[in-house]
Amino acid sequence: MKQFFSVADVANLPDIVDEALRLKNNPFVYGQLGTHKTLGLVFLNPSLRTRLSTQKAAANLGMNVMVMNMDKDGWALETRDGIAMNGTTVEHIREAAAVMGQYCDVLGIRSFPKLQDREADYSEDLFQKFIAYSGVPVVSLESATRHPLQSLTDLITIRENWHQSRKPKVVMAWAPHVKALPQAVPNSFAEWMCRAQGEGMAEFTIAHPPGYTLSEQFTHGATITHVLDDALADADFVYVKNWSSYEDYGKIHPVSGQWMLNHSRLALTNQAKIMHCLPVRRDVELASEVLDSPHSIVIQQAGNRVWAAQAVLKRMLEQLSVDK
Amino acid sequence: MKQFFSVADVANLPDIVDEALRLKNNPFVYGQLGTHKTLGLVFLNPSLRTRLSTQKAAANLGMNVMVMNMDKDGWALETRDGIAMNGTTVEHIREAAAVMGQYCDVLGIRSFPKLQDREADYSEDLFQKFIAYSGVPVVSLESATRHPLQSLTDLITIRENWHQSRKPKVVMAWAPHVKALPQAVPNSFAEWMCRAQGEGMAEFTIAHPPGYTLSEQFTHGATITHVLDDALADADFVYVKNWSSYEDYGKIHPVSGQWMLNHSRLALTNQAKIMHCLPVRRDVELASEVLDSPHSIVIQQAGNRVWAAQAVLKRMLEQLSVDK
Amino acid sequence: MKQFFSVADVANLPDIVDEALRLKNNPFVYGQLGTHKTLGLVFLNPSLRTRLSTQKAAANLGMNVMVMNMDKDGWALETRDGIAMNGTTVEHIREAAAVMGQYCDVLGIRSFPKLQDREADYSEDLFQKFIAYSGVPVVSLESATRHPLQSLTDLITIRENWHQSRKPKVVMAWAPHVKALPQAVPNSFAEWMCRAQGEGMAEFTIAHPPGYTLSEQFTHGATITHVLDDALADADFVYVKNWSSYEDYGKIHPVSGQWMLNHSRLALTNQAKIMHCLPVRRDVELASEVLDSPHSIVIQQAGNRVWAAQAVLKRMLEQLSVDK
Repeated sequence: MKQFFSVADVANLPDIVDEALRLKNNPFVYGQLGTHKTLGLVFLNPSLRTRLSTQKAAANLGMNVMVMNMDKDGWALETRDGIAMNGTTVEHIREAAAVMGQYCDVLGIRSFPKLQDREADYSEDLFQKFIAYSGVPVVSLESATRHPLQSLTDLITIRENWHQSRKPKVVMAWAPHVKALPQAVPNSFAEWMCRAQGEGMAEFTIAHPPGYTLSEQFTHGATITHVLDDALADADFVYVKNWSSYEDYGKIHPVSGQWMLNHSRLALTNQAKIMHCLPVRRDVELASEVLDSPHSIVIQQAGNRVWAAQAVLKRMLEQLSVDK
Repeated sequence: MKQFFSVADVANLPDIVDEALRLKNNPFVYGQLGTHKTLGLVFLNPSLRTRLSTQKAAANLGMNVMVMNMDKDGWALETRDGIAMNGTTVEHIREAAAVMGQYCDVLGIRSFPKLQDREADYSEDLFQKFIAYSGVPVVSLESATRHPLQSLTDLITIRENWHQSRKPKVVMAWAPHVKALPQAVPNSFAEWMCRAQGEGMAEFTIAHPPGYTLSEQFTHGATITHVLDDALADADFVYVKNWSSYEDYGKIHPVSGQWMLNHSRLALTNQAKIMHCLPVRRDVELASEVLDSPHSIVIQQAGNRVWAAQAVLKRMLEQLSVDK
Repeated sequence: MKQFFSVADVANLPDIVDEALRLKNNPFVYGQLGTHKTLGLVFLNPSLRTRLSTQKAAANLGMNVMVMNMDKDGWALETRDGIAMNGTTVEHIREAAAVMGQYCDVLGIRSFPKLQDREADYSEDLFQKFIAYSGVPVVSLESATRHPLQSLTDLITIRENWHQSRKPKVVMAWAPHVKALPQAVPNSFAEWMCRAQGEGMAEFTIAHPPGYTLSEQFTHGATITHVLDDALADADFVYVKNWSSYEDYGKIHPVSGQWMLNHSRLALTNQAKIMHCLPVRRDVELASEVLDSPHSIVIQQAGNRVWAAQAVLKRMLEQLSVDK
């Protein structure tokens, strides 16, 4: 594996999920694989789960880890080509990425979208340039449009919590929020679940209010409804998530009806397990009564971030030793 | 040891002091104890000594360390229950603590008081919730009302510098400052010294101006005076420290008389050793002529932070292997 | 080696360059030298290359590394003596340095000049006090007037790229910028190149506009011209760098003529290799057409920062074991 940016970078979906679960049972069995290999984690935005779980995964593999809070400890980055850098940006991503590639065997980068120019955000310009110029394998720690370590984690968590022979019904349910959030997590979850559905691993439904349709490239094959209660009927897993509008890009539209999941709504489901990528706004996105109930698997889900990262890093390290 | 928050978490005071001094003489003898164990250090406030000494202690024990500057690199934390999170806080401590507990075998957290609401600060709400929700052993890196790693260090340092059969006279002397500081360090030093006095290890006196009485729960058994020179008479150790008012909570009262320790004041003592937790405001809290004299043991004291942290982490690691 | 602050701290210049290149070929051969040794990296200013390359170098030697962003995660430092600390600075460098020396076997520190008071900056007061009070070997990560890890890197890179028996002609060419930058990098490069020239390793020329003369202590022996094209004639290496005025301290003077290196200027040289310490302002300091051409060795140069740091740290570790 030379990059981990979208589900397309995974050749065999069940394989990587199985491998992550084997690593969870036996975290240190590849503890020598990363000897003398350095992982650089570059953050242009805040991070708790991604920061710590990826560090932990790398330590389990015996890697050296260096964290770079580029937004605070480094220099303001320029990504545009063909302009004279006479403004406030101090270093071009061409140099910054190439230099970090000199010091690191694998790089991870987090960069949120600005939510102002859809075309710019969806071009994934920064991320693609980072890959192009760094010259080493790159893991997305969440980019403008995707969060693949989260999505792999989500599949692992569903697998861990499903013990029946029929396919689970998985619902991604839009939830209210006070801020405009990126589409990266829902895009990515949809992309991975549509792939899983195509491989017979699940049935996937998305429920959101009018005005919150995601880009079709991520949701192709999903059942989509504007009626939350219809979606919740017989759901085995409910993935709660807010996102801002893709159509009226980055905006928050007023919605009619109640979209926060609570106990009475939960009763519509098939005793569903409740998932969320966190951080979650209690009693805005999701009722505390649900979060604090045994239905919630959000902490287990967050814990699984380690094994998703470890499975990805393991494959990159194996590729490095093949390429040598 | 499953938590280290106050002196009550230490079963045998002389034992842990002795152990810390043995570790100082032989820092790497338990270098395998922390193999495959991760320490997470969570800072909601600045830190120099605590940050570096605790990292160093963990490294001496072979632990993996992850540092999280929550105030800058993570998300704004909510601690209140029963409110809808529709304001500026992004993540509830219930989730944040539980998630970090997924990634770390032991956690440390630093959180200063706001000095605005005494009841809120002294409830130690954040720290207690962090313990409750993280599910792993937690070390205080200074909480609203206590700084136990500092106090253990202080006892170690007094032990190291006392070679007579009689009990040393230890004086905690209030000192001037330009800002309102928490009571955490003086509360904690008093709590530990009162315990030490009760076990026949020292005689403990506190000197402060009127209006600066500490909460009696920390000072029970100490001799308390408003006359600094009386306290200094025959003192073997003088612990210099400013704090803001506990009574008129978080306020600075004008004080009469001179409260800064200088050479002429030092002459009243029994050639006392001078201690301070640092950082110290030179020539405001403590005269440079004292700080730069052989009487000052503040650097040795700061160095001992490593061994206090290492003794505590060692006990937590041993407990983890027992619980397994 | 007990300090690394200027070229004067290097006894034998070709030796350390050779050693760095041997380390590049065999990075892990001294992987046990740093066992149980801790490097503390203290940043008072932003850093990308220095931060990551020095961490990497220390890891290659098996050292434990602790990074301290003093400007953000610690306390505001006072450096003046003889004043009462009743202002905004919280800790004096006397204590801060001494305390960090308690926790670390080797320290590195970065501190930029303020560019307001030449005498203050050129006294290197902060750096010298840090050395004096820390009590351990100190590596400059760039001080007010010098950047020796960069300059050693530059010599390594020239050596790597020169395979002829005659001495290479090395030109340091002033370049335009939008901000007032320190003289640390050009001072340091000049200091190291003048030493190299004195030892028959190169011929060294500096080209800058009137008003940008560097302090003679750094440039003694160099050929200095105000005519860029004259300097470029037959150049084998061109080191592009902006600096603010030393004479009219910290100021930017309007310059006449074109000072940015581009393809047509490059044609004047002997197919010169182009160097820059980075970050570089594209199409302000240096034309993109040059940066993106095979003439540019700026990424290789940045990569070599690891080997310069590793050679210096190796010597300090060896000294520590001698002193023991």
